[in-house]
Amino acid sequence: MSKVYAEQSMSLDGFTTGPNVRVGNGMGDDGDRLHDWRFDAKTETDAKVFDEFRASTGAVIIGKRMFDVGFEPWGDPPPFRMPVFIVTHEKREPLPMQGGTTYTFVTDGIEAALELARAAAGDNNVGIWGGANIIRQYLKAGLLDEMQIHLIPILFGDGIQLFEGLDPEGIELRKVSSIDTPGATHFRFEVVKRRT
Amino acid sequence: MSKVYAEQSMSLDGFTTGPNVRVGNGMGDDGDRLHDWRFDAKTETDAKVFDEFRASTGAVIIGKRMFDVGFEPWGDPPPFRMPVFIVTHEKREPLPMQGGTTYTFVTDGIEAALELARAAAGDNNVGIWGGANIIRQYLKAGLLDEMQIHLIPILFGDGIQLFEGLDPEGIELRKVSSIDTPGATHFRFEVVKRRT
Repeated sequence: MSKVYAEQSMSLDGFTTGPNVRVGNGMGDDGDRLHDWRFDAKTETDAKVFDEFRASTGAVIIGKRMFDVGFEPWGDPPPFRMPVFIVTHEKREPLPMQGGTTYTFVTDGIEAALELARAAAGDNNVGIWGGANIIRQYLKAGLLDEMQIHLIPILFGDGIQLFEGLDPEGIELRKVSSIDTPGATHFRFEVVKRRT
Repeated sequence: MSKVYAEQSMSLDGFTTGPNVRVGNGMGDDGDRLHDWRFDAKTETDAKVFDEFRASTGAVIIGKRMFDVGFEPWGDPPPFRMPVFIVTHEKREPLPMQGGTTYTFVTDGIEAALELARAAAGDNNVGIWGGANIIRQYLKAGLLDEMQIHLIPILFGDGIQLFEGLDPEGIELRKVSSIDTPGATHFRFEVVKRRT
């Protein structure tokens, strides 16, 4: 069955970007190091982890801030190659790009975005690919089946923290798998709703 | 050669205690779950990890806050069974306990405490066992050779964060090993001093 998962690379001190994120510095200072496991430091195992979650994903949801800082570096064709739904307050026409990516702007909330993404994904999974804020919203609303966290052995000290300000009441995680490479530890956690 | 390491169990969101740490609630609300891997959820692998770092340790350094909240629950004999040095501002006579533990209070700083602990440990390692604040001080001062972090798949949302407020400039970690069990992922990181 199709599932809804969030996916992030996170530093050991909990950050999903370095400090000073802005347009032109989308991952923050030194933030690209979070994705070394997908590029310079990629092993065969890292590649397998990446290819597996990519191949099983049929649609992606991202936040407006991630879209704003990502739009230019992603270029055209963007790396998604599938429908991307952007949760935003700004009404805007869908933006078809080359290579299978269409950016669709959803102004009526995270559940509406999920409904559209599910329909677009069919039997494939829906990936909440960030940023941290939108992932926390889906987690808190009980809409995530799984979290995939790539833990990176670096310290940032500042930036955007994945779990910052989250009240985890009612959220339990069950570790499904942990795959270790020099550049990352790839965790999959099932999100279990605790009976309260 | 003898090395200096820090050791902590840490939640996925970076906390080494639950919320509301105080005397009588030393690990904070629900904080005992951080140590399930050493008790209720212990596997043979967890036991091996624990026994190995215990057996190679000859002296322990802790902070005053940890001592204050731990003293009563640790009881007599305390679980250390080796010399324990407490970094504090409060002058106090050494306190010998049963079973090989002596609490020694060091009022002239973290380096002085380390010197005493090294001498007491001989060829064995010195463990900085917490809390978070004292570990950050040793890390920042460049006095740690290694960090052993047991990452626990739970979220606390509040409490004491291991890396909170740390400026990581000049600190690089190199993952030495990662051992996964259902209750914990046992990481060892070498602390590498970055050339600046």
